[in-house]
Amino acid sequence: MKRIALITSGGDAPGMNAAIRSIVLACHEQDIQCLGFFHGYNGLMHDEFKELTVDLVAPIIQFGGTILKSARCKEMHQNSGVEQVASTLTRHSIDALIVVGGDGSFRGMMALQPYWQGHLIGIPATIDNDLACTDKTIGFATAVSTATHAIDKIRDTANAFERVFIVEVMGRHSGHIAFNVGLATGAEAILSFENCDSKNLEQVQADLINQIQSQRQHNHSGFVIVLAENLWPGGPHGLQAALRETAHIESAVCVLGYIQRGGNPCPEDRILATELGIEAVRAAKNRSGVMVGKVHGQISINCIIRATEQSKPVDQALRLAYNQICQLT
Amino acid sequence: MKRIALITSGGDAPGMNAAIRSIVLACHEQDIQCLGFFHGYNGLMHDEFKELTVDLVAPIIQFGGTILKSARCKEMHQNSGVEQVASTLTRHSIDALIVVGGDGSFRGMMALQPYWQGHLIGIPATIDNDLACTDKTIGFATAVSTATHAIDKIRDTANAFERVFIVEVMGRHSGHIAFNVGLATGAEAILSFENCDSKNLEQVQADLINQIQSQRQHNHSGFVIVLAENLWPGGPHGLQAALRETAHIESAVCVLGYIQRGGNPCPEDRILATELGIEAVRAAKNRSGVMVGKVHGQISINCIIRATEQSKPVDQALRLAYNQICQLT
Amino acid sequence: MKRIALITSGGDAPGMNAAIRSIVLACHEQDIQCLGFFHGYNGLMHDEFKELTVDLVAPIIQFGGTILKSARCKEMHQNSGVEQVASTLTRHSIDALIVVGGDGSFRGMMALQPYWQGHLIGIPATIDNDLACTDKTIGFATAVSTATHAIDKIRDTANAFERVFIVEVMGRHSGHIAFNVGLATGAEAILSFENCDSKNLEQVQADLINQIQSQRQHNHSGFVIVLAENLWPGGPHGLQAALRETAHIESAVCVLGYIQRGGNPCPEDRILATELGIEAVRAAKNRSGVMVGKVHGQISINCIIRATEQSKPVDQALRLAYNQICQLT
Amino acid sequence: MKRIALITSGGDAPGMNAAIRSIVLACHEQDIQCLGFFHGYNGLMHDEFKELTVDLVAPIIQFGGTILKSARCKEMHQNSGVEQVASTLTRHSIDALIVVGGDGSFRGMMALQPYWQGHLIGIPATIDNDLACTDKTIGFATAVSTATHAIDKIRDTANAFERVFIVEVMGRHSGHIAFNVGLATGAEAILSFENCDSKNLEQVQADLINQIQSQRQHNHSGFVIVLAENLWPGGPHGLQAALRETAHIESAVCVLGYIQRGGNPCPEDRILATELGIEAVRAAKNRSGVMVGKVHGQISINCIIRATEQSKPVDQALRLAYNQICQLT
Repeated sequence: MKRIALITSGGDAPGMNAAIRSIVLACHEQDIQCLGFFHGYNGLMHDEFKELTVDLVAPIIQFGGTILKSARCKEMHQNSGVEQVASTLTRHSIDALIVVGGDGSFRGMMALQPYWQGHLIGIPATIDNDLACTDKTIGFATAVSTATHAIDKIRDTANAFERVFIVEVMGRHSGHIAFNVGLATGAEAILSFENCDSKNLEQVQADLINQIQSQRQHNHSGFVIVLAENLWPGGPHGLQAALRETAHIESAVCVLGYIQRGGNPCPEDRILATELGIEAVRAAKNRSGVMVGKVHGQISINCIIRATEQSKPVDQALRLAYNQICQLT
Repeated sequence: MKRIALITSGGDAPGMNAAIRSIVLACHEQDIQCLGFFHGYNGLMHDEFKELTVDLVAPIIQFGGTILKSARCKEMHQNSGVEQVASTLTRHSIDALIVVGGDGSFRGMMALQPYWQGHLIGIPATIDNDLACTDKTIGFATAVSTATHAIDKIRDTANAFERVFIVEVMGRHSGHIAFNVGLATGAEAILSFENCDSKNLEQVQADLINQIQSQRQHNHSGFVIVLAENLWPGGPHGLQAALRETAHIESAVCVLGYIQRGGNPCPEDRILATELGIEAVRAAKNRSGVMVGKVHGQISINCIIRATEQSKPVDQALRLAYNQICQLT
Repeated sequence: MKRIALITSGGDAPGMNAAIRSIVLACHEQDIQCLGFFHGYNGLMHDEFKELTVDLVAPIIQFGGTILKSARCKEMHQNSGVEQVASTLTRHSIDALIVVGGDGSFRGMMALQPYWQGHLIGIPATIDNDLACTDKTIGFATAVSTATHAIDKIRDTANAFERVFIVEVMGRHSGHIAFNVGLATGAEAILSFENCDSKNLEQVQADLINQIQSQRQHNHSGFVIVLAENLWPGGPHGLQAALRETAHIESAVCVLGYIQRGGNPCPEDRILATELGIEAVRAAKNRSGVMVGKVHGQISINCIIRATEQSKPVDQALRLAYNQICQLT
Repeated sequence: MKRIALITSGGDAPGMNAAIRSIVLACHEQDIQCLGFFHGYNGLMHDEFKELTVDLVAPIIQFGGTILKSARCKEMHQNSGVEQVASTLTRHSIDALIVVGGDGSFRGMMALQPYWQGHLIGIPATIDNDLACTDKTIGFATAVSTATHAIDKIRDTANAFERVFIVEVMGRHSGHIAFNVGLATGAEAILSFENCDSKNLEQVQADLINQIQSQRQHNHSGFVIVLAENLWPGGPHGLQAALRETAHIESAVCVLGYIQRGGNPCPEDRILATELGIEAVRAAKNRSGVMVGKVHGQISINCIIRATEQSKPVDQALRLAYNQICQLT
């Protein structure tokens, strides 16, 4: 193996730079040249790249974002786009392509497989943690940390005003962030896909109102609801209106939004990214169509098809802990 | 002076607890009893209080929120409410009332003045920094710090995606937060009351679009717009729609919201709160209807009327700095 | 089970309060009374305690330290002391004692076992992570986070001055903190028990000097050495003197010290503490002499003898990653 | 004015990068070329430099350290060294030299003045805040913030163990950091040059022991002593030994050290650096031998001789606040 291509793709996640650094260092140690293409698949399409050297990546382990930039790439949904990417890879005599990204980025790899003979390796990086075959994706731990510290601040105001707060967190269609953050902040309620039947939100709402009213009778503190994005019709403002109209409960809304996607990665994400980067370079020698991950503390290599098609439920222990104690306070 | 009453009132601000601590310690040193009433003026109305001792307040200097809770109090707009507050103060033989809060809380003091003979002292605490007669209000520096670090995170994603971000910050009707945060984060644009004619937002919008399009031609990084709340019709989403419809510029919206109100106070707020707390106890002996503040580094005591009625412009140096360099990047 | 006693013991660790909260909430849910004794085993010896209620513990999940205080307790090394503890537990009709602490605290439990019939349950909490039968101990993740962010700051000065820094981290006699922090900060060298033969430190020193001199020839940035406490004769100042005398290499020393023991727990520690707290209350019904832990993502219950007597090596993947890439930069 | 040279010199301080950025942007706006020399005066001696462009500095406002590196420069104490610097400046047709640094760096400017005709402008940047003619130096606010948050963590352990901690902070020969940090953390004692007669440390020690013993009688919490570096013979370990030997008081030592010098600058430092950078470019047109600073909220330009030779006392209000309340808890 003489030359590797590398992209970061899809939503950026803290730790992507740590993965880039690790790949470049591992390549350097094995005399492999490493080309970084910019803007995800777009850079492969338009031949925008830079050779990545040790000096360039040495200081980036602590930075959020990605020095290779990221982007979605619509052209990857069409054969012509995929062929263009394949032709760039062939023209540069690339032996393996490493893709650091999530779900959509991995589908891009699958689309590319029929058109290119080189090895395709995925590294899971998305704050949503919605990829199977790895306990955690790169970026998830930092997003949980950022959201937790944000809600710690909101808690101050919630308690000072003895007020209900609805805080929307990211997660796309999964509750990994919602449950971890909810438990870590001692949220009084967590509303997510895993514990709310989206066909019966009226019942969810009635239970929530009961819980708020019951807390108010014996306790004078804030009431924080952690709400997963994409769950409630109208989002947090929809829930706010429902509480007001149905039960005269006033509440304040916070949408944490993009702060969850950036920031210096926490140590856990830096270490995970470093380990997976090294492993990806190793796997690139004789595997293809696989994702490197970490399952139960061990490096694990699986088909990207499995990683994207299987669903990864929220840790059962978290859900039980929430059911048993969160609603008591 | 034998007995002081103390409330925190209006929007909570980081450093309120440091002010409470300082007042209690200063009272202790001078053998003055200190009663803390809960929920702002409501506690005075309903006689909810606790004697504040050194042990109780010793550890709170680093905590956001307020151990005395806070609240708005509608009844203070009516004579009957004000009389009730005055009667509580009289019944407890209070010599002086110290109010830690903002604008509205100080108006409450003015309303109370005709009905009660004791001394009234204000300590300026609001994240908005919109009170005259003090360079900074308690809580402002922490809010600037929180918003700055949040935008640092957003900057990562903005740069990775070379994308326009509209970030709404608090400030009520003033641009203190917007200008400080905009300058500290190197925002490409700051939109606030001070530099945007609200009657001519079309021109503002046209200039902004020019700036974005011109940056895009020579530079590939993110473009962060810091937007003061209450300025733009429809808020940040209104501006987002305008950019899209007028110039096909896509952007992402973040509303920082309540995280700016909570959190551990930064050292500057803790120190300011400590100094003003001591000064308030000193002033309570022979002054009334005044606010203690710090102007140009010196303790300054002024009529609360002046503090609330004068406006305090955003520091000229900030505005000049913004005009000269922010728009260049 | 009607009544549980609870202590935090040994070195404090971030997340101890989260464990206390979780235990109290789980007890509350099952109508079990929970008595918190102060200052570790000392409180049991001198009958200092408080009944722990939901209101008391609701807000503490985010705070470092421990509301039950902690302490070492020499008297537990003597039979008379142990008997006194047993008699307090009997007098209060305690069904189970939960001990949140490390190694030494668990030895206390073992000493107590012959003298008292109740159930003894341990929860592993120490920043050093030096207990077997659990992947991580409570407090470890926060200590790694604090040390990582501290070294990020030191890195700024190291790079600005192109200087060698020796940074001592905690860990007692294990390198869990050293390796995690070293990898997360991209340290140029990690010196710990696991990769340094303490009988041949001359060789370690010679290799280190080689590495520094070789880096200096091609690269102009800082050089950060993460040093495990208790490894080097004379500590970091000993190593500093050795580098100066042997090879005329000047360096600066930082001892991170106690900042690693305090601070708001990171989400990972809060969640681990919450899960283990619930599990401890469950286990207390029919198990004794055991520690609850989490192994490979699953709750795991093991004899405390095993937990203290087995050693837990530093994760192999970390050591490999360090060997492969850290020394390249 | 066509060409400016720029160095960062002496101990690095958070905000130096923000100053560089601001100078480069202000130069760009006025079509002035800006050359950044590396390693302080060394770069001027050895002609190591880079032209600083807008793209290069745009993203650095939030980073600690300095992209121009820093260093001490012994050769500046000799005429030959100074002449070499002057000749580099002349050879490059530099109109003005801006020096971002402290005390020693400004003495370098004074040494240079007789040998070079160009304009010399200083920007005060040192965490110690020991320069007159400016309320605060760049880096000071961040150092105070870092030390404050570190002591907040130490406080957790101090309280959990009810233990005495001696925490050494930086400041060279002034107590600006010690007093600000001590007040912000609610330290029980501050020992610094301003309130300790170094010729009568026995009295200081006796008073301290009294205070500790008296607190122990009525209160059970930690006792934190903030100690200025260079004050106590033998440093914090000297004081620790003295407390043990004289009064059997056990204590723990923390030396915060270099973490105070690095890290992302806080908003206050970023803004100060931005304003002073712009002002320095403006002043460079027609002034020389001056330092730009901010006094009582206003830009102020003074002779560098005055800035270095006058001493700047610790704010009187801080010292009074400390005397009145800190020792009560």
